[in-house]
Amino acid sequence: MTVPRIDVVYRLGVAAGQTAHRARLLAIEQSIEMPVEAVGDGRILDDVLARVERIEPQADGSSLACLGLSVESVCEDAGQMMNMLFGNCSLQPDVELVDIEVPPSLAQAFGGPNLGIEGLRRLTAAHNRPLTCSALKPIGSTVSQLAELCRTFAQAGIDVIKDDHGWANQRSAPFAERVAACQREVQDANAAFGRHTVYAPSLYGAQAQMQRQIELARAHGVAAVLVAPLICGVATLHALKREHPELAFIAHPAFGGAGRIAPPVLVGKLFRLFGADAVIFPNHGGRFTYAADVCREIAHNSRAPWHGLRPALPVPAGGMSVERVPEIKREYGVDTMLLIGGSLLIARERLGERCRDFVDSVAAADEVAA
Amino acid sequence: MTVPRIDVVYRLGVAAGQTAHRARLLAIEQSIEMPVEAVGDGRILDDVLARVERIEPQADGSSLACLGLSVESVCEDAGQMMNMLFGNCSLQPDVELVDIEVPPSLAQAFGGPNLGIEGLRRLTAAHNRPLTCSALKPIGSTVSQLAELCRTFAQAGIDVIKDDHGWANQRSAPFAERVAACQREVQDANAAFGRHTVYAPSLYGAQAQMQRQIELARAHGVAAVLVAPLICGVATLHALKREHPELAFIAHPAFGGAGRIAPPVLVGKLFRLFGADAVIFPNHGGRFTYAADVCREIAHNSRAPWHGLRPALPVPAGGMSVERVPEIKREYGVDTMLLIGGSLLIARERLGERCRDFVDSVAAADEVAA
Repeated sequence: MTVPRIDVVYRLGVAAGQTAHRARLLAIEQSIEMPVEAVGDGRILDDVLARVERIEPQADGSSLACLGLSVESVCEDAGQMMNMLFGNCSLQPDVELVDIEVPPSLAQAFGGPNLGIEGLRRLTAAHNRPLTCSALKPIGSTVSQLAELCRTFAQAGIDVIKDDHGWANQRSAPFAERVAACQREVQDANAAFGRHTVYAPSLYGAQAQMQRQIELARAHGVAAVLVAPLICGVATLHALKREHPELAFIAHPAFGGAGRIAPPVLVGKLFRLFGADAVIFPNHGGRFTYAADVCREIAHNSRAPWHGLRPALPVPAGGMSVERVPEIKREYGVDTMLLIGGSLLIARERLGERCRDFVDSVAAADEVAA
Repeated sequence: MTVPRIDVVYRLGVAAGQTAHRARLLAIEQSIEMPVEAVGDGRILDDVLARVERIEPQADGSSLACLGLSVESVCEDAGQMMNMLFGNCSLQPDVELVDIEVPPSLAQAFGGPNLGIEGLRRLTAAHNRPLTCSALKPIGSTVSQLAELCRTFAQAGIDVIKDDHGWANQRSAPFAERVAACQREVQDANAAFGRHTVYAPSLYGAQAQMQRQIELARAHGVAAVLVAPLICGVATLHALKREHPELAFIAHPAFGGAGRIAPPVLVGKLFRLFGADAVIFPNHGGRFTYAADVCREIAHNSRAPWHGLRPALPVPAGGMSVERVPEIKREYGVDTMLLIGGSLLIARERLGERCRDFVDSVAAADEVAA
């Protein structure tokens, strides 16, 4: 072992004879993401390219491939860790992430829970038994309805009262008023009954907003919050817990299955709605398996008139080549950006020439659809 | 139509006779997330509860269910929109999100792309043809290797040169040095050849870091950036594009398939690693379909010794009831938090009593495993 590595186990849904090849492609996808033969720097091949450590055939016909990812590529950043673990291969349906192990140094760098089980028990004074928790529902309730519910929960001695994860800043019970009222009920009940119930409001938005929400909540005495790491981004959770070492973070699993949002909606509509000017997607016939009609629908959604929003530029990508430029132009027309990566780099010393072929081929007037 | 609604089309993978019931459950899951009969406020049933608008049987045996979600529940927040569209039901494997439509007012509130296709064409002076794009690869390269690659791409006239999406702040080419060097090469080539190539560095981390990265990049003259909205969170993309109306955002689809990360890894290990003190997961036998051994493994991973990180409290949830408390205690032991929501609320005026049953049942010493 020359450099510390993250061990990742993937399940490969391919026929037995193809596992070694598939694992090798996966190692490339989750690290250098380009043809190995185009990499000139030996250090990158030794230290950065993910390594296939072993392959274990399973009884069900699948195989487990154990890969070693370079720690260096993760940069001690939570989002980047997800990116290296499952960023691109999450788009390949024959791959499942089954397990991970990190070197101790990376575990220390991230740091894990601020309080953990012991700290949560200290907060709630709940020892030698499971803790209890309930949720403030339904969204749409008023602040006084929620406060009453909170009082009932707290008087009954429930340890943790959390906002339903559907709470954000709804006008029926805006965050600031909701948190003030609910926390007051909890504190009153705690004082009256000698209890230690904790209220955990649900954070929403991006990091700066969550930061302000935490400050507001802390000012009222709130000791725990609810976050959905897959919605706010794991880097947001990590940054907030770093900034607030005294606060407990409860993670909600919402949005764990984004793979079942149809790509034309996720990439073509939602990314555009939230402000992407150009949307990259894996074109059919490359390293990914989106069907041709799915790709066309992504492009359609990104450009179609939609409530006056600016059209976003579709960017078919993922294993494209200069040879396919005419076909891609015919398919997507003029309002498109063609993204070619690894297959340019493989030209090595003829890279400039190959790039000019790419540029010329795209500029050629003949094949572009209307 | 009393209130504006978001139209969402889901594909339901259930037998034909069950679609109406399944659609109704989905409407509850994606809005009030509690038993309808426990909701006392008529406004919530009218305006907040999602509505099943129609169900369309498909030739392949599945059905499309068109639901109307309340706009009020989205709070004009991008993350909350994902939460309401697919937060919980992403964890239910028989549901796929197929399409969405939003009211014009919500489209305007989010605002979509800053520049869009027209603005990207203006930036790159690329008209009447597709744009060209390539990527700076592989990760692990040095700044001078990347700068050379950038020069080759720019001199060849490629319109957009983006960082590979695997770039964060690797020590071989830290963000600040990489951006300065690559942007300089692009500007030099543009000046020498009268071109308008644009360099788009890849942002990493949480919003505050991305904000600083954008400021640094803008100071060098960078006009576009690359983000992976499913990694940084869609609210982060939306906040950044708001703050930087002159900047182009290119969205990368990485991490679109989080549903294929084994839950014991995602919830038990990764959420803990990044700092969750307590991790909620859908327990078996409730509204979700995680198998019992998957749930036990989530709990195991959240609590097992791991590089000295604090253990995180497992929180089995998702349709639990007071009646199941003894069983859950036997299964998960003492270091657990039991989360019961809707099935408490259904007691309505007997809620306080039901909560005390919950609390007493959890506190009872007998059934807890060691």
